[in-house]
Amino acid sequence: MGTKLDGKTLAANIRNDISEKIEKLKKENKKIPSLANIIIGEDGGSRFYFNTQNSVCEKVGIKTKSLELEENIQEETLIDLIKQLNEDKSVSGIILQLPLPKHLDENKIASTISIKKDVDGLNSLSSGKLFKGEDCFVPCTPKGIIKLIKSTGVEIQGKHAVVIGRSNIVGKPVAQLLLAENATVTMCHSKSDNLKEICKMADILVVAIGRPGIINKEYVKKNALVIDVGTTVVNGKLTGDVDYNDVVDIAAYTTPVPGGVGPMTTTMLLVNLCGDN
Amino acid sequence: MGTKLDGKTLAANIRNDISEKIEKLKKENKKIPSLANIIIGEDGGSRFYFNTQNSVCEKVGIKTKSLELEENIQEETLIDLIKQLNEDKSVSGIILQLPLPKHLDENKIASTISIKKDVDGLNSLSSGKLFKGEDCFVPCTPKGIIKLIKSTGVEIQGKHAVVIGRSNIVGKPVAQLLLAENATVTMCHSKSDNLKEICKMADILVVAIGRPGIINKEYVKKNALVIDVGTTVVNGKLTGDVDYNDVVDIAAYTTPVPGGVGPMTTTMLLVNLCGDN
Repeated sequence: MGTKLDGKTLAANIRNDISEKIEKLKKENKKIPSLANIIIGEDGGSRFYFNTQNSVCEKVGIKTKSLELEENIQEETLIDLIKQLNEDKSVSGIILQLPLPKHLDENKIASTISIKKDVDGLNSLSSGKLFKGEDCFVPCTPKGIIKLIKSTGVEIQGKHAVVIGRSNIVGKPVAQLLLAENATVTMCHSKSDNLKEICKMADILVVAIGRPGIINKEYVKKNALVIDVGTTVVNGKLTGDVDYNDVVDIAAYTTPVPGGVGPMTTTMLLVNLCGDN
Repeated sequence: MGTKLDGKTLAANIRNDISEKIEKLKKENKKIPSLANIIIGEDGGSRFYFNTQNSVCEKVGIKTKSLELEENIQEETLIDLIKQLNEDKSVSGIILQLPLPKHLDENKIASTISIKKDVDGLNSLSSGKLFKGEDCFVPCTPKGIIKLIKSTGVEIQGKHAVVIGRSNIVGKPVAQLLLAENATVTMCHSKSDNLKEICKMADILVVAIGRPGIINKEYVKKNALVIDVGTTVVNGKLTGDVDYNDVVDIAAYTTPVPGGVGPMTTTMLLVNLCGDN
């Protein structure tokens, strides 16, 4: 019988540590971290993340500054605003909710965020630094995944990690982080031949493709560690890419959805805001 | 009997096309591309590349500006110089020979090169753009490798490509480029377990580890395409990572050393200077 890899509890423990740390900073009259959270319009579907991030920050005592901007904001106005936040000493981190409305150049605008405040790694320079192994903010979901894996005590070095999905915010950066931990890393995607055969080789399997339940036990090696990043709403229920009940017995560790990667992601935002590793 | 994948001839053909293009630009009194090539001191072992790049440029009619600087140059002086070259309209591309002397911060200085002139992709922002699939200069060696593979007509999409070696200038970017071509990509390195087993799965095998002759036919699947990026001098002779004579019969295509990737690398510098894909 495999083990549930419980992100909810791990995340709660990390948030407790952060609460205590902030409490201490307050007592010592030191600077408290703060988040500037930018959302544009209502069509991007990011209102949920925006609200969750703000509420998680406030619960641990991190200050938040919400910038809710009009759907039709001009590119230059937005860039000027981000530049002001870059200079603003009361702001430690900046998040921009994506996707942006179509008239705005996402890469250009995200890359205006100072890499010193880019707590979700949106700037392409942050991505380049991650890619090259330079010091930088690590995007929250990939960072949370590595912490989840490490929490099991399973050694990453030399192991074969297979990542399904190649998005810029999950699949590609998590592959780079696993490589930096000395795993052999295979990147698969919708165009991969022999997906089943390759997944079956994985000691560590990270699934981030947004196809509910596609990964069953036929894709999983005995005693593998399985991380499910899928979050599709099916019949009103948050559903992962992994068929948890089918996989949990063959894998050594499996993350549930919800309660696996999700809580780690928002918690890593707090970790980044506090400047922790 | 497999085929020699002849980079020397392919590169010569591309250089001929570029010569003709430059000739035409001259006749039409249009702007000729030019390279600013910076070398610092003599200890980095890059004098050979510096000379080769300049001579290849000059042969096709691309102008070169050599900046041979003192070993003990101050960081600020060098950064100011690069900023001047960024602004200089007579310069289309800038190359900085690496490694730099130890008192200089390589990442910081390389990232001063404007991404509009960063013809070898040294700036971390260029790396980030490559990583995210944004428009950018592609570093010369990885770009040359993709051109070599494509020259065979072998389809990349869906195939399993295995890259051995994870340097920032070859292994990591070539893995990203193969991924962008819809290959399934595995990144291996010195810490990988089961290297032989994984290599044996590769439809496309790219070897860039600098261990002369380590890859023999036991690592190669029948009819694979094998790219050898190794360039170690052994008994005065340039030697690849692949045991060519052992591998050539089992593989469908194998690059020789010398005459494979090497000539493509310098030629891709010309392609980048001309702004071609």
